[in-house]
Amino acid sequence: MQNNKVVLVVGAGDAIGSAIATEFAKKGLTVCLARRSADAVQSYAETLRSDGFDAHGFPLDARNEEQVIALFDKIEREIGTIEVVVFNIGANVPMGIVETSAKKFFKIWEMACFSGFLVGREAARKMLERKRGTILFTGATASVRGGAMFAAFASAKHGLRSLAQSMARELGPKNIHVAHVIIDGAVDTQWIRENHPDFESLNAQEGIVKPNELAQNYVMLYEQPRSAWTFELDIRPWVEKW
Amino acid sequence: MQNNKVVLVVGAGDAIGSAIATEFAKKGLTVCLARRSADAVQSYAETLRSDGFDAHGFPLDARNEEQVIALFDKIEREIGTIEVVVFNIGANVPMGIVETSAKKFFKIWEMACFSGFLVGREAARKMLERKRGTILFTGATASVRGGAMFAAFASAKHGLRSLAQSMARELGPKNIHVAHVIIDGAVDTQWIRENHPDFESLNAQEGIVKPNELAQNYVMLYEQPRSAWTFELDIRPWVEKW
Amino acid sequence: MQNNKVVLVVGAGDAIGSAIATEFAKKGLTVCLARRSADAVQSYAETLRSDGFDAHGFPLDARNEEQVIALFDKIEREIGTIEVVVFNIGANVPMGIVETSAKKFFKIWEMACFSGFLVGREAARKMLERKRGTILFTGATASVRGGAMFAAFASAKHGLRSLAQSMARELGPKNIHVAHVIIDGAVDTQWIRENHPDFESLNAQEGIVKPNELAQNYVMLYEQPRSAWTFELDIRPWVEKW
Amino acid sequence: MQNNKVVLVVGAGDAIGSAIATEFAKKGLTVCLARRSADAVQSYAETLRSDGFDAHGFPLDARNEEQVIALFDKIEREIGTIEVVVFNIGANVPMGIVETSAKKFFKIWEMACFSGFLVGREAARKMLERKRGTILFTGATASVRGGAMFAAFASAKHGLRSLAQSMARELGPKNIHVAHVIIDGAVDTQWIRENHPDFESLNAQEGIVKPNELAQNYVMLYEQPRSAWTFELDIRPWVEKW
Repeated sequence: MQNNKVVLVVGAGDAIGSAIATEFAKKGLTVCLARRSADAVQSYAETLRSDGFDAHGFPLDARNEEQVIALFDKIEREIGTIEVVVFNIGANVPMGIVETSAKKFFKIWEMACFSGFLVGREAARKMLERKRGTILFTGATASVRGGAMFAAFASAKHGLRSLAQSMARELGPKNIHVAHVIIDGAVDTQWIRENHPDFESLNAQEGIVKPNELAQNYVMLYEQPRSAWTFELDIRPWVEKW
Repeated sequence: MQNNKVVLVVGAGDAIGSAIATEFAKKGLTVCLARRSADAVQSYAETLRSDGFDAHGFPLDARNEEQVIALFDKIEREIGTIEVVVFNIGANVPMGIVETSAKKFFKIWEMACFSGFLVGREAARKMLERKRGTILFTGATASVRGGAMFAAFASAKHGLRSLAQSMARELGPKNIHVAHVIIDGAVDTQWIRENHPDFESLNAQEGIVKPNELAQNYVMLYEQPRSAWTFELDIRPWVEKW
Repeated sequence: MQNNKVVLVVGAGDAIGSAIATEFAKKGLTVCLARRSADAVQSYAETLRSDGFDAHGFPLDARNEEQVIALFDKIEREIGTIEVVVFNIGANVPMGIVETSAKKFFKIWEMACFSGFLVGREAARKMLERKRGTILFTGATASVRGGAMFAAFASAKHGLRSLAQSMARELGPKNIHVAHVIIDGAVDTQWIRENHPDFESLNAQEGIVKPNELAQNYVMLYEQPRSAWTFELDIRPWVEKW
Repeated sequence: MQNNKVVLVVGAGDAIGSAIATEFAKKGLTVCLARRSADAVQSYAETLRSDGFDAHGFPLDARNEEQVIALFDKIEREIGTIEVVVFNIGANVPMGIVETSAKKFFKIWEMACFSGFLVGREAARKMLERKRGTILFTGATASVRGGAMFAAFASAKHGLRSLAQSMARELGPKNIHVAHVIIDGAVDTQWIRENHPDFESLNAQEGIVKPNELAQNYVMLYEQPRSAWTFELDIRPWVEKW
């Protein structure tokens, strides 16, 4: 069993995480999904299994160091070798600076940055043992640009990007590929379907990022041979203003 | 007494914070110094008073929301109007990613970024009432560039810079000037004197940043008229490689 | 004949341009190669043809507006529809600022930036007619960072990158995909083989970019569906310091 | 006479160049103004002289290498030691990529970038002899961001910024301070007065950059002691969206 090649997707219940998992499954990797809600993650793992893929769901509070450590150990013990880790958690609630409670600022950072550190570090620890692996982080426009009403989110996402860059510089020469994908545009998720004012008309002309088309970039990064690794790329729909 | 114009320097015990406080004192502002250690901050306030300046020291754990709120209230009630706030806390301990404990990662962020949020937000709250003020953040090379062994520090400093940029974009049009100073080189502090291998020879030719010369840039930013505000500038000694 | 899908590679005699051409040929595109030296470009086109690909070589001084216009016209008239254009010219000669003659500064810009403008503009002109196409520019470390001894080259490469970015912002919403590949490391070219002090040992461990592995990224950019386009990615070998 | 300290402002007829010259004149420097139009530059030099300053006007086509070399020689021979050089030429005409003629693209680069190279190089040559001096370049939003309709201007301004950065890295350790000022907003010039739709209302509330307030930053950069040099700062009015 331990010969399985595993991709672990942390933050794997929404459209993006699920699409990434599916694309890796198609490449023959065993998929491990982790997410806060046990129900959501089990349900998605079942869907993947019913499509004939090898998939496992794990409830995880990625802000909890012990849980993160335990999950990496469990997967390597019971399922296979973690070849790829995708960190895909993030949540934004736009708010003015004086309306930003300390609790909110902390929580956004804890989810979008601190969890990424815990997951990235444990990935590094396992991968350093065998000098091989890929660690992928999902970024956003706010990763490279602060903005009014975005202080908390931009601060966390800049923190995550800089973590990824620091890890890439440290771990690259140890044969571990760390990369950061900047999503600069709306993705077709449940939330966007319900909240984006122009969803229908934009989506009809591919003006909303399709999760599976986004996800192919994660697989591409995983497959890059080591003579030509990418640290960062941006993704946006063709009609996006930027 | 409330007619005093106050500069509040948070992180005001080391050479940089002290130099900034002194330069503002020379401009006639009442200086409020805040720092973890009550002794250090009182001692420096006394030095300033013995030089004829109006200076007050306050112990502050800037990671503590209540303490930060209380300090702003106390200063405005008892001492004067806070015109300028300088956030100057930061600490780096280089370490590899797998040697970085969760506690360490958290603590570096808490000091270098979360405290900056608390101080910046309270500054904004007071300044928005009178639609006037200047908020200055101290950055570092790690604010704009991740690096091997710098994951925790770079993550926190990127987070702080992005907070500053978001605040500048939100608060500029409300007549509050937010700026970020990137120090890209060694500054003449006690720590550098004791640890920099070439301190003596570099310092003899102005190859180490002089705190008072650095501090003049903070005063310059404060004095910029609002038709021509700077968000960011970098500072380094002439001999620095970059 | 005009039903052929054509990739035009400008600067197509060195290892990089040739590898890019080959990867597109493998995807079924008709390859048009353009380069200053008629001999070199014909010889490479013949190699491609002997491998069973459809390939044509054209001598081109890409700094010459009339030649560039004429080449686009000729290809579309005689060979097929230009779906992809790759601009791949650049040359660096490190030199101190006062040793940089005006002639040298001009020539480096003319080759690395002005030619890119001419080629990019003609590509846009043809592609706007049918609202479809991909335009790819090759960048370098100097595209995003100036450096001592690199004033002329960095100036030209920054100019090219900014041209690409401006074109991407203008032409994206017109269904033309413009992207920029930053090569941050030595590539296995004849020049590197002869001049890089550690070529052998680095290359033995994939520490030198392999042209065909680099080239796959150009094809990937061409194949990206328009819901998820990349403007920029960086490429470097795993061991590279950056 | 050769004991005079000279500031040479190239591109010195508009409001910005003139304001920069005036601020340096107030600091006691002898002002040399250079500009295409002999009339404009003589007339402004006379205005400065009638205000009691030492000022000289020179007609200069800064794209002409011989003229640039000759002007530096003439000033050093007849007027004094060039301590500061300000390069302040630039012109933008927004246009779509396919409407951009090769002549236009070339001319914008020649004015905004190539002239800056010639002036910067001659400044470096003189200053390296005595290992002392300040070279200041005026940038714009387009120096750091391409945009639709801005391909030619952004390309030239990125090229100029990268030249400045390369020179700063090469010449800093030789005691020559090179800096770049990014103006990100409308400045009160004749052109803006005639073309900006909200000039009056914006200017009434300091929403347009005042040239003399901008110019003070150039003097500030010149006066920075070498332990704390800035390479780059941005300038915008408080109300600017960015």
